[in-house]
Amino acid sequence: MPELRKDPVTDRWVIISSDRANRPIDFMEIKEKNKKNLSPFSAGNEAMTPPEIFAIREQNSAPNSPGWSLRVIPNKYPALKVEGELSRQGEGIFDMMNGVGAHEVIIETPDPQKNFVDLDNNAIRDIFRVFRERILDLKRDIRLKYAIIFKNKGLAAGASLEHSHSQLIATPIIPKTVAEELEGARGYYQLKERCIFCDIIRQEIKDNIRIVFEEELFVATEPFAPRFPFETWILPKKHFSHYETINDDHILHLAITVKTVLQKINIALKSPAYNFVIHTAPMQEKPMNDFHWHLELMPKLTNVAGFEWGTGFYINHTSPEEAARYLKEITV
Amino acid sequence: MPELRKDPVTDRWVIISSDRANRPIDFMEIKEKNKKNLSPFSAGNEAMTPPEIFAIREQNSAPNSPGWSLRVIPNKYPALKVEGELSRQGEGIFDMMNGVGAHEVIIETPDPQKNFVDLDNNAIRDIFRVFRERILDLKRDIRLKYAIIFKNKGLAAGASLEHSHSQLIATPIIPKTVAEELEGARGYYQLKERCIFCDIIRQEIKDNIRIVFEEELFVATEPFAPRFPFETWILPKKHFSHYETINDDHILHLAITVKTVLQKINIALKSPAYNFVIHTAPMQEKPMNDFHWHLELMPKLTNVAGFEWGTGFYINHTSPEEAARYLKEITV
Repeated sequence: MPELRKDPVTDRWVIISSDRANRPIDFMEIKEKNKKNLSPFSAGNEAMTPPEIFAIREQNSAPNSPGWSLRVIPNKYPALKVEGELSRQGEGIFDMMNGVGAHEVIIETPDPQKNFVDLDNNAIRDIFRVFRERILDLKRDIRLKYAIIFKNKGLAAGASLEHSHSQLIATPIIPKTVAEELEGARGYYQLKERCIFCDIIRQEIKDNIRIVFEEELFVATEPFAPRFPFETWILPKKHFSHYETINDDHILHLAITVKTVLQKINIALKSPAYNFVIHTAPMQEKPMNDFHWHLELMPKLTNVAGFEWGTGFYINHTSPEEAARYLKEITV
Repeated sequence: MPELRKDPVTDRWVIISSDRANRPIDFMEIKEKNKKNLSPFSAGNEAMTPPEIFAIREQNSAPNSPGWSLRVIPNKYPALKVEGELSRQGEGIFDMMNGVGAHEVIIETPDPQKNFVDLDNNAIRDIFRVFRERILDLKRDIRLKYAIIFKNKGLAAGASLEHSHSQLIATPIIPKTVAEELEGARGYYQLKERCIFCDIIRQEIKDNIRIVFEEELFVATEPFAPRFPFETWILPKKHFSHYETINDDHILHLAITVKTVLQKINIALKSPAYNFVIHTAPMQEKPMNDFHWHLELMPKLTNVAGFEWGTGFYINHTSPEEAARYLKEITV
C-alpha cells in the first residue's frame, strides 16, 4: 500500500510507493524494457491494462475491446489507491497517512506511433474534455482535495511508456507547491483586489515581448521568471479558477493553442521531451476570484536537476524574451 | 549581466543568465562537446581557466601553473558576478535585481581521470576545508547573504565537465527552499525548544531502520520522507548551524563519512550520476539553536523531473528503509 509521508522540516509530502522498482538494479533496466515491449496501450492490447474507467468508442463496441479513440484506465502501478479509509499516523516525530487517492492514465490514441501533437484538433479537444470529466467524477469523493493532470512526453521527462498518454493523480492533501501558488495569488488579491494572473496577462499582451501565441480566448507566454529554457504558460484570457468549469467552446480553443505551441517547440528544439501540468484550484473549493487556472509546459532540455531540486534556486541560461522571439517567429 | 528575477506568484527567485546558451541548437550539442574537448581543469591547462582565487600547491610553484592539488577559480560562465552595485528594479508588476554574487569552481584534483570518490581521505578533507575557507572569505562581503556549495557528478546530474569539481554560488538573497527549511526548523524549536535535526538524529539512531553509516562524529541516514530513491543525508551528531564553523578534526570525519557513503552507493547502483548540496545557515547570521547544517546527497536514478518540478509532489518508488538496508549491508 502506498504511503504519504511528510518531511518534518519543510512539511513537504512525498508518496512512497515501493510496489514497482524495489531492487537497485531496476533503475538500470528501464531503457531496455521500453524498447523491447509492445505497447500495452495499443488497440487490441486492452487485456494488458486494468479494465477501463471511461472510453470514447464506436457505438456497439464493447468495453475493453478495440473500437475506441481515447481510453482512461487506472494506473497499473498506482502511486495512490482508491480503496481504504484515510488514516493519519505518527512514527515518533514523523507524520504519515495511507496512500488514499486515485491515479489514472489517459490513453490519448490507440495508435502507438502517434504523438499528442500529431493528433487532429478534435482528438486533442477530446483529451482536454476527458480531463474535465474525470475531475468532475472524482470530486464527488470528498476525501480527495486536489487533482493534478500532467503529461510526461519522452524518457527524459519521466515517461515510462512511449505510447502517447497523460495522467491524473487525485490526492487527499493539497500539494505544497500548489498551496504556495494559491497563497501567493491570494496575497496579491488582498492587496489589489485583482487576480494576479489577469494582471500578468494584461501586462504581457501590452508589453508583447514574451508572448509566443495569442488567439481569441487563450494566450501562450513565456513567464517573467522561468525556471527552465522555453518554459511556456498557456492561460485562458477570461478569469476561471477551476479547470473543470471549462466549456466545450473554450476546450477547442485550448486544444488549438496547446497544439500550436507544441508544434513551434518541436520545430525550434527538434521535438524535445517535455512535461505539461495543469495548475487549477482545489476541486472541493468554490470558484475563486484570486486564482486563475493555467497550463505550464516545460521542454526538458537541460540536466541541471539535482542542484535546483536541492536548493529551489534555478539558473536559466535562456531569457524568456529570447525564447519568445524564437517561438513567435516560427509559423506552423 | 546576469539578472535575478522574482516570480510574482510564488516569490521564487530565478537567475537569468543568457551568456552561455542562447541559440536553441546549443542544447543539442552539449553531449558531443564534452567528449571531444580536453579538460580545461587538468594540470598544465591552467591558462584555459580564469586566474585562480585560491590553490593548495607545492612551495615555490607559481599561481596558475602546475604543482597544485586543488584549485579554486571563478566560473568562466558565472550565474552571478561580483562586480557592480546591488540594485532592485521593477518592470510593471515584476521585480528583478542585477545578478550580484559569486560563482566559483573548486577543481578537486589535477587528474582528469580521478573521481571524487577515488581521492584519498586527505584530498577529500582538503576539499571540505576549502569549502569552509571560501565561505569565510566571501562572508566579508555583506551584500552576500547565502552560500550554496554543491557538486554535480555526471551529465545526468547537470555536470557540464567530467573533470571532478564542485561549485560555490553566493547570492544576495536567501533561496526560497532554504528560507522554508529555516522557517520549518524555527517553528519546531519554538514549540519544543529543541533542534529538529538533533531530534531526527536521536530518533534515527534509536530506530536504526534508515541509518546507512554511523561513526563517532557523523551519521548518514535515509530521510523519513525522501524525494528520490537512495537520497541520503549526512549530519554532524553535534549541533552546529553554520558549515563554516567546522573544525579540522570534524572535517576529516566528514570526508571519511561522505567517501564511505559514496562508495556504498557506487557499488549498489553502479556509480550513478549524483548531486550533493550542503544545507547551511545564512552566512551573515549568528550561530542558531534551531538550524543544523547537513549535506544532502541525491543519486540521479530516475527521470521523473518535470512533474515533480511542476507540482512539488514527489513520488518515490523505493522506501528509505529498503534503501538503507541495501546500503548498510555493503562493506567498503
